[in-house]
Amino acid sequence: MTRLPTDPAANLSALIRCVSVTPAEGGALTALQAMLEPMGFSVERPVFRQEGTPDVENMLAVRGTRGPHLAFNGHTDVVPPGDEGDWRHPPFSAAVEDGEMFGRGAVDMKGGIACFVAALARLVEKGALEEGRVSLLITGDEEGVAINGTVKLLAHAAERGHRFDACLVGEPTNPDALGDIIKIGRRGSLSGLVTITGAQGHVAYPHRARNPMRVLPAVMEALQGVPLDEGTADFQPSNLEWTSVDTGNRAANVIAARVSAAFNVRFNDVWTGETLRAEIERRLAASVAQADGFTVGVEWKEPVADAFLTAEGPLTRALAGAVEEETGRRPELSTSGGTSDARFVKDFCPVVEFGLVGRTMHMANERVALSDLESLTRVYETFIARWFAANA
Amino acid sequence: MTRLPTDPAANLSALIRCVSVTPAEGGALTALQAMLEPMGFSVERPVFRQEGTPDVENMLAVRGTRGPHLAFNGHTDVVPPGDEGDWRHPPFSAAVEDGEMFGRGAVDMKGGIACFVAALARLVEKGALEEGRVSLLITGDEEGVAINGTVKLLAHAAERGHRFDACLVGEPTNPDALGDIIKIGRRGSLSGLVTITGAQGHVAYPHRARNPMRVLPAVMEALQGVPLDEGTADFQPSNLEWTSVDTGNRAANVIAARVSAAFNVRFNDVWTGETLRAEIERRLAASVAQADGFTVGVEWKEPVADAFLTAEGPLTRALAGAVEEETGRRPELSTSGGTSDARFVKDFCPVVEFGLVGRTMHMANERVALSDLESLTRVYETFIARWFAANA
Repeated sequence: MTRLPTDPAANLSALIRCVSVTPAEGGALTALQAMLEPMGFSVERPVFRQEGTPDVENMLAVRGTRGPHLAFNGHTDVVPPGDEGDWRHPPFSAAVEDGEMFGRGAVDMKGGIACFVAALARLVEKGALEEGRVSLLITGDEEGVAINGTVKLLAHAAERGHRFDACLVGEPTNPDALGDIIKIGRRGSLSGLVTITGAQGHVAYPHRARNPMRVLPAVMEALQGVPLDEGTADFQPSNLEWTSVDTGNRAANVIAARVSAAFNVRFNDVWTGETLRAEIERRLAASVAQADGFTVGVEWKEPVADAFLTAEGPLTRALAGAVEEETGRRPELSTSGGTSDARFVKDFCPVVEFGLVGRTMHMANERVALSDLESLTRVYETFIARWFAANA
Repeated sequence: MTRLPTDPAANLSALIRCVSVTPAEGGALTALQAMLEPMGFSVERPVFRQEGTPDVENMLAVRGTRGPHLAFNGHTDVVPPGDEGDWRHPPFSAAVEDGEMFGRGAVDMKGGIACFVAALARLVEKGALEEGRVSLLITGDEEGVAINGTVKLLAHAAERGHRFDACLVGEPTNPDALGDIIKIGRRGSLSGLVTITGAQGHVAYPHRARNPMRVLPAVMEALQGVPLDEGTADFQPSNLEWTSVDTGNRAANVIAARVSAAFNVRFNDVWTGETLRAEIERRLAASVAQADGFTVGVEWKEPVADAFLTAEGPLTRALAGAVEEETGRRPELSTSGGTSDARFVKDFCPVVEFGLVGRTMHMANERVALSDLESLTRVYETFIARWFAANA
């Protein structure tokens, strides 16, 4: 029998050496397939396409045909390494120094995949995975536009009749040390572009023009001046940030006819995308009297992600218990931070997120402690065992 | 003896037929030279150059060697005609219909030049111009960047020993009818670019960033919220207009590090460029507490034009009297509106402005009533005679 991939460091080394800068596959899915097939996984590698975006290769690996179905979601694509001169070791070398492995994707999130595969391999070797099903949904489009990735892979799996009872996303959730944080939800995200239209004219004759920038402060204050909410027990307050205000007028003697202001809101479950859009439109309408001769409109951007929260239950308890057993620390159950592909998974089954320490993600010298790889592998092994026991 | 150019409509027709879209000479100065030399003018046509701007041809025409020296300033360049399909007659045809002559530059300001030349021709025919000096300073760079035009032509004339006692600018000062307005000054103009710098970050982690757009409304209100002044007996209130606010960030999940806001102030003689810059810098400094971690700076743009006012005296009285005698209307002495090349002339001698009716300037079907051409010629003739009489 082939030796199974029980060593997370060996698994990660193989993955880091694949130059899978988003959206390139770079050999990473092939390396992963070589680990999974000896464990009895059936592997499919669908390529998803959409006009105006790059084609992206993905992987659906399924083991087992009956019993509770646990899914793992992750991505093998990585962000670019930046200037390689800023790295102590080449970014795709998987060099080890002082107990740390260096490389782009070490923690975000080839490392999480390497540990999950090692945990599965250990369970397979023990014969402990025979009573249920495990699937891996691995994409190459998480760091990119996220259009030809997890969202399509979930639909693809559903079309083939796969139903998942729970899913673990292996993103690096810990800010400082393994055991800090389990993510049990995410805030929603809504982007829009406000445009104020007045009337063009000459700066020396402002009474014949209507300068939209004269009311820009009032319009911006209408959206940012009063908090959207105070947060909830599970979520931070919703927050709006202006991302770009633009006029694009290069003539110093011309009053421009319009100015646009782009914003993004990270919002909690006080709102849905729909109720939040209505509130913002209400605030905009109230901000500028139509009698002043200005029009204020908003154009909404796709996609809109609603906030979600995974209720406390067998899934959260199995993961929190496994983390505490291995690390000796009680993890915070959090909904903070940015979005992840969990926003797509949540429409199919309950989802939680736990992975490595994200401190060096997206930076030069991204790296992971070898001891963390071993600890996370044990957390995952314990979690899988506990989850199947709870769902037996 | 050659017939002198006493007919303003004939003069204007010759000038309109020259396609002198800024900065092209287009034959307009040659046509003008052909009118002036038979009247005894010495004509020079210096070409001025500056790196990064087009070369521009100008004209200095001087008649007489002693006595009071009256200057006339104008431009033969015109703005582009736009879509010729919008014109009832081709824009460089000088077609006459129902007592109006059509053409680009008809009122702005080939018409003013045509009338001044006709007025001079009539005085020369009468032998009434022998006791003083008259100079024409005509540029081809008024509608362009105004760098290789009147400002250099004035310096050029000064280098050749010409000193002017007064100057008339022939821009179309009348909004509706001949006799409405004489301009006796202009507001100053100051342009700047305010830049607010914070710290870049991710929209999901605003506490780790400092979004400069969060304080943009307060910074804008600091400059526009409290009027700069209430105006004076001679001037409108000073006024600030924002011309462009720009961030240039296309990533919906990124908080940008900086935003810039360009503005222009048209200011009266309550301020100089220097005191106004200091006031704006004071308001900016007060607008954002440095403790908030934002920096707010302002970059000043060249050129700065101070406001100026020509005191009531022989010049304003000669012109106002001539206008009233010819039109039967008492003109308003005004400082309103945009800038003109008078802002350069005022450093050399007292300057006033009076010309045709500007209603169609810069528009399709720019045109002038033939009766206005005759009236303005008479105003100019009377003005010149009165001014020399007052300065004899």
